[in-house]
Amino acid sequence: MTPLLPHHDGSALHVSDSAPELGDVVTVRLRVPSGYGPLAAVRTRSNPDHEPEWTTAHRIGEADGWEWWEAPVTVRNRRHGYRFVLLHEDGTVEWLNQSGLHRGETLDAEDFALVAHPAPPAWLNESVMYQVFPDRFARSAQADEHETPEWAIPAQWDDPVDPVLPGRSQQFYGGDLPGIIEHLDHLVSLGVNVLYLTPIFPAASNHRYDASSFDRVDPLLGGDEAYVRLIEEAHARGIRVIGDLTSNHSGDRHEWFRSARGNPGAQTESYYYFTDDANTAYESWLGTPTLPKFDWSSAALRERFITGDDSIVAKWLQPPYNADGWRIDVANMTGRLGDVDLNAEVRGLLRETMLRINPDAVLLGESTNDAISDLQGDGWHGAMTYPSFTRPVWGWLRGDEVEPWLTAEGETRTEPWFFGQPIGGIPAYTAEDVAAAITRFTAGIPWRVRLGNMQPLDTHDTGRFATYAAEGTVPVAAGLSMTLPGLPVVFAGDEFGMVGADGEASRTPMPWGSESHESVAPFLALYRDLVHLRREHPVLGTGGMRWMHVDEETLIFVRESVEETMLVVATRGGADAAIPAGALPGAGDATPVYGDAVLATAADGSIVISADGPSFAAWSLPGVRVPVVG
Amino acid sequence: MTPLLPHHDGSALHVSDSAPELGDVVTVRLRVPSGYGPLAAVRTRSNPDHEPEWTTAHRIGEADGWEWWEAPVTVRNRRHGYRFVLLHEDGTVEWLNQSGLHRGETLDAEDFALVAHPAPPAWLNESVMYQVFPDRFARSAQADEHETPEWAIPAQWDDPVDPVLPGRSQQFYGGDLPGIIEHLDHLVSLGVNVLYLTPIFPAASNHRYDASSFDRVDPLLGGDEAYVRLIEEAHARGIRVIGDLTSNHSGDRHEWFRSARGNPGAQTESYYYFTDDANTAYESWLGTPTLPKFDWSSAALRERFITGDDSIVAKWLQPPYNADGWRIDVANMTGRLGDVDLNAEVRGLLRETMLRINPDAVLLGESTNDAISDLQGDGWHGAMTYPSFTRPVWGWLRGDEVEPWLTAEGETRTEPWFFGQPIGGIPAYTAEDVAAAITRFTAGIPWRVRLGNMQPLDTHDTGRFATYAAEGTVPVAAGLSMTLPGLPVVFAGDEFGMVGADGEASRTPMPWGSESHESVAPFLALYRDLVHLRREHPVLGTGGMRWMHVDEETLIFVRESVEETMLVVATRGGADAAIPAGALPGAGDATPVYGDAVLATAADGSIVISADGPSFAAWSLPGVRVPVVG
Repeated sequence: MTPLLPHHDGSALHVSDSAPELGDVVTVRLRVPSGYGPLAAVRTRSNPDHEPEWTTAHRIGEADGWEWWEAPVTVRNRRHGYRFVLLHEDGTVEWLNQSGLHRGETLDAEDFALVAHPAPPAWLNESVMYQVFPDRFARSAQADEHETPEWAIPAQWDDPVDPVLPGRSQQFYGGDLPGIIEHLDHLVSLGVNVLYLTPIFPAASNHRYDASSFDRVDPLLGGDEAYVRLIEEAHARGIRVIGDLTSNHSGDRHEWFRSARGNPGAQTESYYYFTDDANTAYESWLGTPTLPKFDWSSAALRERFITGDDSIVAKWLQPPYNADGWRIDVANMTGRLGDVDLNAEVRGLLRETMLRINPDAVLLGESTNDAISDLQGDGWHGAMTYPSFTRPVWGWLRGDEVEPWLTAEGETRTEPWFFGQPIGGIPAYTAEDVAAAITRFTAGIPWRVRLGNMQPLDTHDTGRFATYAAEGTVPVAAGLSMTLPGLPVVFAGDEFGMVGADGEASRTPMPWGSESHESVAPFLALYRDLVHLRREHPVLGTGGMRWMHVDEETLIFVRESVEETMLVVATRGGADAAIPAGALPGAGDATPVYGDAVLATAADGSIVISADGPSFAAWSLPGVRVPVVG
Repeated sequence: MTPLLPHHDGSALHVSDSAPELGDVVTVRLRVPSGYGPLAAVRTRSNPDHEPEWTTAHRIGEADGWEWWEAPVTVRNRRHGYRFVLLHEDGTVEWLNQSGLHRGETLDAEDFALVAHPAPPAWLNESVMYQVFPDRFARSAQADEHETPEWAIPAQWDDPVDPVLPGRSQQFYGGDLPGIIEHLDHLVSLGVNVLYLTPIFPAASNHRYDASSFDRVDPLLGGDEAYVRLIEEAHARGIRVIGDLTSNHSGDRHEWFRSARGNPGAQTESYYYFTDDANTAYESWLGTPTLPKFDWSSAALRERFITGDDSIVAKWLQPPYNADGWRIDVANMTGRLGDVDLNAEVRGLLRETMLRINPDAVLLGESTNDAISDLQGDGWHGAMTYPSFTRPVWGWLRGDEVEPWLTAEGETRTEPWFFGQPIGGIPAYTAEDVAAAITRFTAGIPWRVRLGNMQPLDTHDTGRFATYAAEGTVPVAAGLSMTLPGLPVVFAGDEFGMVGADGEASRTPMPWGSESHESVAPFLALYRDLVHLRREHPVLGTGGMRWMHVDEETLIFVRESVEETMLVVATRGGADAAIPAGALPGAGDATPVYGDAVLATAADGSIVISADGPSFAAWSLPGVRVPVVG
């Protein structure tokens, strides 16, 4: 039985204002289980300008088995860290921060943190995102009107994906924006409300991350007109649309690069890192010559790309396009090259410009590994990142069987693809390891930013989760993506139960027409149900989060607000867990909202949760009662 | 019995070059206990420009029970993080970083780190520092020639320190630099080789942190001439001298401040944060009006204080003064104020200037709490910091008895002073907690910088350790300060066994003449022996470090190089520990070099270490054998 512990997080239950300004006094609340202690005092410790500042909490009362304490914190830095210290009457001292309860002093980096930058748009926390890779989503009749471009290797919709170069990037299926419009009602039926499109600018590859222009939509996709229409049609259905922009590099066919390459003195010369006098050698993304790297020390680039009134970043967020935000590709490397690190400046400029142009737009950064240092609230609202959710879940729910697959170089592999990490396949995680990884990779991120972090099971850059998952575990993984704090993301095709060994195979065209097939229908139903679960329970968007029970096979947690408590169980091998009596005061009124696990009250009053694994389940309980301040 | 684990640290045993340049390839070595695994592969994972880069290690051979693996790491960033990943043949994956061995992915912040900034002076790692607070160290006959300044409350050398304001900062004993010169042979007999003086500039307090000028030595201390002579005399004895500079603020009587206060348009106006048009209101250190805060956005201040050829920073490091470095006061707050953070710029300018003026000078920053974010090798060579050594040791070795003492405000306190933290006194640490705190607060710091971190038991800002220590534990604490990785510091008076309840009482004048008193002589002998231990065994300066055994009462570790292994045991309640056979291949040749703990070989070959507590002991063993690369 997991003991009940003192708790605080950044949610509205515990923090009076999640979007304070510098100088504001925010009230922070600590919950302590009744009977814990007894406590002589509770304090907060901030560290403004790297020098400690303390406040004393007062006990505001007791409700439903919790003592509540409240203290003021004055926001002095834009990322204002604070922690609690609990002084027991017996002299014991405990510290509480985002990594948990500690007997010794804790790290500044793991403090709770208030963020005094402008708040993200509220809709971000009400969203379930749906990711589309345009070449492979849907092909309209209009696509037949286009000539096949010189770089492309044409493919029919049912052709198998060629994972080997050059087919890997040149095989061309011709999906387009009108094709997406034709299937918007599929998104509506799923319940998703944000459509994220990988790049739609003209390029010389099927993935279009090698843009030849950022000023127009690829005519092969239907051009600017189709983009306007897509966004209008999406908005009419309550679906927002965000684009994908490479701030780290362009393609080598980009108009800016072509005018500067071999042309010293060109107007766009400063945009890139040319390394010889003739402008023929240059820095590029991981040494890939088709992807020349931007030099963000260039004032001209900053204006053309971000800050100017007709900049790339601004253009697409304004009429007639009205896109709702950007996902920034390779955000982690942007502005970074050896001794140079302009990343904070670039993400700051992006944010500033977007606030000016379209303050309701979101800014997400790709940062596929530990993204903590870049996620302090100054730029990205969240990240497409894998260590705090995706990889631990893959490790926990991995199966035993792997089909041989081909790499880009045509080599056969019999070990699972695992995010490009040369570690021999998918490492084994227990549920305890998953909880530890979530804590480890979120403890350094302010709560508000954590809520914006994307929680995909897979993306266009990864194998499909289902490919390597143990039988029956897709609901467990998808359920977690919808219920843990963060932004759920469905990569188009997952709802069809698609598989794919790596990031290329995962781009297999959508199997439209198979919706009622017996191998597809259960996945569609699963995703519809889970997306609706998330959408219908706002507590899953912004509620606090507490682990209730973690063992080798099972994760149990609650999301909490004054309106509702959601109890969630995810188990691989089966659950048999007891929650202390009083830890879930509303358990008697629990309403099952997903799954078929059993929640019962034992003779001693404790709550017993049992399920055969793999299983995912959730119950709705009454909201948390906070004592009235006396 | 603590299991033997794979090991790497930043020492020369494991890293081919601790002062690489960008682009250099450094060889890093991992040691794995023979029989651990079996391993299918070992790799390194760097993260240049925040994107992973991998190399493969090869097994170079086996020696003395260890398998050694070696891999290249190309230094791409100035702080270049890397970690190891161990792939077991059974598919298990382990990650090794500065916080230890992990089953799951690890944080960038805790990577091992190479630093491609210019190396610190080698002498820093050969030093034991001795800290002197000039007003209280020694008063020469020359001091009688000075008038008592208007702010001062004169005191006789034997008068008790007045801990209450205004006596607290104005009580004036008249210690001076000639007094220090007269006692330099005391430093020689102790064996210390760096003298750190708290401020010597003119001021209106006994502590002189409220400088009225940085351009001359306080005449009350003997003036510039005495400083020149002190440094000459110290250098003649092999003792270096470093000064103390407040880069966060000056005194309100400072010539710069006086010319700007109430005088809009003054030349030094930009040096400070005036907050009204009349230059009468201004920002100050923690709201203390006598300490106006510097505004480091001022180019004029930067030049006058740091970068100019006749700057404050430069002046005292050059002839005729030739000081050997600076300890920077309130380094943590320097350049920081709410929304402004110029700290990295200021410490970078300091370092740059010092490299130009006197590249053999050291730069240490006061940062009394978690200093990790500022200690990445770009500025400070190390910090005067407390969470990674001083506070955990106080917690572990605290006694039961506390004499009532008076605060600055004259309130009586019966709980121990504890670094200004309002947490009810000194928290209880076990030895395990101490080891955890050391790991927690050093895992984010590059090894090279960790070696420069100061390890005082107390300073002029703290109570004296002995005041609150359990009986017999001073040797344990002092022994650890001399043997753990870092810079040992003796605050003058500790070697006389002095006590003091807080930072004021700890400034009690030195009891010269009491050296042979029975309450003093054992402390003098203890410190002499421990300082000489450190000085005579370079492995304690730069050797690697591995925990061998940690339990509630005892810490056992080794410092390691190819020349020597030092085995160290520190226990409070008594030690009875077994080290696995083969973990200490040279144990048969162990030479006791300090203390009277017992090292024996058990029937099963394991090494048994036993001691009655409290106890500190050390043994010298043969150096580590590294297999020749085949």
